[in-house]
Amino acid sequence: MADPRFFDRAGPFTLAELAARCGATLSVDADPALVLTDVAPLDQAGAGHLSFLDNRKYLEAFQASRAAACVVHPSLADKAPAGTALLLSTKPYRSYALCAQAFYPLPASTGRISAAAHVDPSARLGENVEVAAGAVIEAGAEIGPRTRIAANAVIGRHVRIGADSVIGACASLSHCLIGDRVVIYPGARIGQDGFGFAMDVAGHVRVPQMGRVIIEDDVEVGANSTIDRGAGPDTIIGRGTMIDNLVQIGHNVTLGAGCVIVAQSGISGSTKFDHHAVLAAQAGVAGHLSIGAGARIAAQSGVMRDVPPMTEVFGTPAQPKRQYFRQVAMMARLAKGKSGRGDEHDGNE
Amino acid sequence: MADPRFFDRAGPFTLAELAARCGATLSVDADPALVLTDVAPLDQAGAGHLSFLDNRKYLEAFQASRAAACVVHPSLADKAPAGTALLLSTKPYRSYALCAQAFYPLPASTGRISAAAHVDPSARLGENVEVAAGAVIEAGAEIGPRTRIAANAVIGRHVRIGADSVIGACASLSHCLIGDRVVIYPGARIGQDGFGFAMDVAGHVRVPQMGRVIIEDDVEVGANSTIDRGAGPDTIIGRGTMIDNLVQIGHNVTLGAGCVIVAQSGISGSTKFDHHAVLAAQAGVAGHLSIGAGARIAAQSGVMRDVPPMTEVFGTPAQPKRQYFRQVAMMARLAKGKSGRGDEHDGNE
Amino acid sequence: MADPRFFDRAGPFTLAELAARCGATLSVDADPALVLTDVAPLDQAGAGHLSFLDNRKYLEAFQASRAAACVVHPSLADKAPAGTALLLSTKPYRSYALCAQAFYPLPASTGRISAAAHVDPSARLGENVEVAAGAVIEAGAEIGPRTRIAANAVIGRHVRIGADSVIGACASLSHCLIGDRVVIYPGARIGQDGFGFAMDVAGHVRVPQMGRVIIEDDVEVGANSTIDRGAGPDTIIGRGTMIDNLVQIGHNVTLGAGCVIVAQSGISGSTKFDHHAVLAAQAGVAGHLSIGAGARIAAQSGVMRDVPPMTEVFGTPAQPKRQYFRQVAMMARLAKGKSGRGDEHDGNE
Repeated sequence: MADPRFFDRAGPFTLAELAARCGATLSVDADPALVLTDVAPLDQAGAGHLSFLDNRKYLEAFQASRAAACVVHPSLADKAPAGTALLLSTKPYRSYALCAQAFYPLPASTGRISAAAHVDPSARLGENVEVAAGAVIEAGAEIGPRTRIAANAVIGRHVRIGADSVIGACASLSHCLIGDRVVIYPGARIGQDGFGFAMDVAGHVRVPQMGRVIIEDDVEVGANSTIDRGAGPDTIIGRGTMIDNLVQIGHNVTLGAGCVIVAQSGISGSTKFDHHAVLAAQAGVAGHLSIGAGARIAAQSGVMRDVPPMTEVFGTPAQPKRQYFRQVAMMARLAKGKSGRGDEHDGNE
Repeated sequence: MADPRFFDRAGPFTLAELAARCGATLSVDADPALVLTDVAPLDQAGAGHLSFLDNRKYLEAFQASRAAACVVHPSLADKAPAGTALLLSTKPYRSYALCAQAFYPLPASTGRISAAAHVDPSARLGENVEVAAGAVIEAGAEIGPRTRIAANAVIGRHVRIGADSVIGACASLSHCLIGDRVVIYPGARIGQDGFGFAMDVAGHVRVPQMGRVIIEDDVEVGANSTIDRGAGPDTIIGRGTMIDNLVQIGHNVTLGAGCVIVAQSGISGSTKFDHHAVLAAQAGVAGHLSIGAGARIAAQSGVMRDVPPMTEVFGTPAQPKRQYFRQVAMMARLAKGKSGRGDEHDGNE
Repeated sequence: MADPRFFDRAGPFTLAELAARCGATLSVDADPALVLTDVAPLDQAGAGHLSFLDNRKYLEAFQASRAAACVVHPSLADKAPAGTALLLSTKPYRSYALCAQAFYPLPASTGRISAAAHVDPSARLGENVEVAAGAVIEAGAEIGPRTRIAANAVIGRHVRIGADSVIGACASLSHCLIGDRVVIYPGARIGQDGFGFAMDVAGHVRVPQMGRVIIEDDVEVGANSTIDRGAGPDTIIGRGTMIDNLVQIGHNVTLGAGCVIVAQSGISGSTKFDHHAVLAAQAGVAGHLSIGAGARIAAQSGVMRDVPPMTEVFGTPAQPKRQYFRQVAMMARLAKGKSGRGDEHDGNE
């Protein structure tokens, strides 16, 4: 169903092939040789289509679906419509994602260096690197095999990028080392000076920023996001961390593995996120703080203190979930009381 | 008065010509043949200048103005200074805008394809398309007549752009269909993957994003804003919607006609805005919500529920205007009480 | 210690040379001929290294440091470890910054115009201007001596840039006049139309924006920040003002000298900041306001009224510091009361 002008579909795949790719097992009555040609949502799927159920909210759509096959949790297998082959997985969304990647893989490198690209003779390009028109690769840069550099991107002096990575259109990189399978979206800015200066009424004096940005394997950095290089230490983005659009990451920040940083949020200088911490949209974290592993910072929160591991915080200044919602409810009650429609002391009802 | 290095002024125009362009009528004593050469604010306007009054706050400036002509609401005509010709309009700011556009039209296409532009031979360009130096137009793209592509912009594979549109410097477009008279400002990012993946401690798994971005006619998208393509459905920006700078629009979002989305605000995935809804600066809207026609979301609000049509909401979590300001006032009173300068139970005074 | 692939270190310098550059005096027992080769943090510094102490919190690290020399306030000179030469300064961080700049100066212009740059023949370039590959300099632009234009940057028609400035990769400038020693970071957007239109259900009508952006000397504008040109008056950024990443500055805004505008904050149209005002991260200021000299607006605040000089404000709507923290504390107490672990009327304990 994807617009063929923009998307090249791979496949078809048999049910058995997809089960192997996504770590699922087939339901007893499913035909391993069933041929699947595409993925589709439950309500649009038909013959040849694979769909998925990840949320009990969609149970009705599942039961009404005409999908040829469906990824589903084993506990819901008995709700399946007759005639739908099942891929049973304890992580159905993950399994579905792997199947969808089979049909719609990231475009492979063409291995073509455009005649309209500007590659410095001292840059070293691995096998099958793709460089689009207008891209600039400066002196001493190193690009790993099969990495794709999109149109008008700029790879600065001595930047190193690993294998199978993608640098989006108009992105710019300097003072950084980038791992394998990293995706930098269009317009992201990586490696510029951090915001460091000695404030002075006679004129602020910039402090040279002499660190780098280190981006580990499997990281994604969203469109128009900015990651400043370290002031002396490095700024480090841990393996598998996902960063959305328009995010600001200050100098010396360290993010552990698998963090999720949602759009328009910002992290001030020298703050550390332990692995799998989540920063929701438009939230901000002050400098020099520690955010524990698996902590979750809600959208628009303002974090001014360390956050312990596995804790959820909300609001500005950010506080634990329970306390925040108690305050929100309390304020609503009080405001109601003031209007005469209640009594401000009866808040426990 | 505009700097002639940067702006080419059209005209002069007679009062009658301007009245016809802007839907105004002349005051009884105004000379239709009066020649006007420029627009100017009330306090700076003089001979040959057209000004406007849109806000009673500036009545004094109006009365003191030496403008040759002025756009004004009929109800204020009797306040006009002697000798100023009047263009009477029930929408004076709109009428003024149309006159100002007459003097300062968007630059027309030169019809020139720079020798330093990189246009794929398979791209199809309409009549009088302008392509500046360093712009890249990839395979299969289609550009409508008189559309202007600024320096170092990137038009991705198979992207379609209508007539009389403008794509700003360093903007990048992929996986999208763009209408007529659309203005994309410098650095905007349109059509990249949305932020979709199966979260997993063993490594997040990206879900392929197989939708597009559809931008209808007369839309503007501000500088460095980001609009992600749909995950399967499309992301849709309705006719005449105005989007300011540094705005984030997530995958599958639908905006109706004439919405206004102010700087640094963000809309999460799959949320729908009905027509003429307004999202003020730095506000955020969670995913999968419905915002009604003509609703207004105040600056910095955080919207976590549907907003009914024609409703104004404020704060995080966002609530109706009246309730929000009652809470703000109540908190101020309580805090005052705590300091000993009041009593926290006397809030009704 | 800086990665030599990315940083070219100058020096070495004698202690006497550094003292002269940074306005410090030598401690009595310091050898003016001592040779220093680099700067380093207190805990990493060794032979040949200059460090600094700016905050009593690090007194212990200072006392344990093996730095050859250290910049320190005269009042702390007696805490210095034996054998460390001291540079005594009443502004130790400022003095350190000046020394660090000596070792790590901004890269000088190579004076090279890349054959892959696109410079309009009518543009005027001063002596020793550097223009990197893919950069576009449009008709009538003027670039001052020693200014560096990075790869894929776009300098629009008739833009004027002073001497010793730096325009980052993929930045775009139009309708603006830029001073000396200005640094524009990668992806910044300067001079595009402001967000001005007559709202109308029949279709919003854009109001032509006929002002410019004026950027005075010694300003820095962060990565992917956006500064719209004036609607008629100019947008003005005063001398020495520092703007961080992803900041939005609306049309007609005036910033005085030495302001500090932190990441992801935004300033709405026609607001004026007097000199040395500070806007912290993710804060927003409504339009047509006056922010006094030296005022400080805290992170994530929403300013809806004028702020007097030298005042600190917090929260949304922003209020004076004392009042804000009183409210925060009061709300915490009340919410505690509601949970039965306190009494909401005993808030004064």
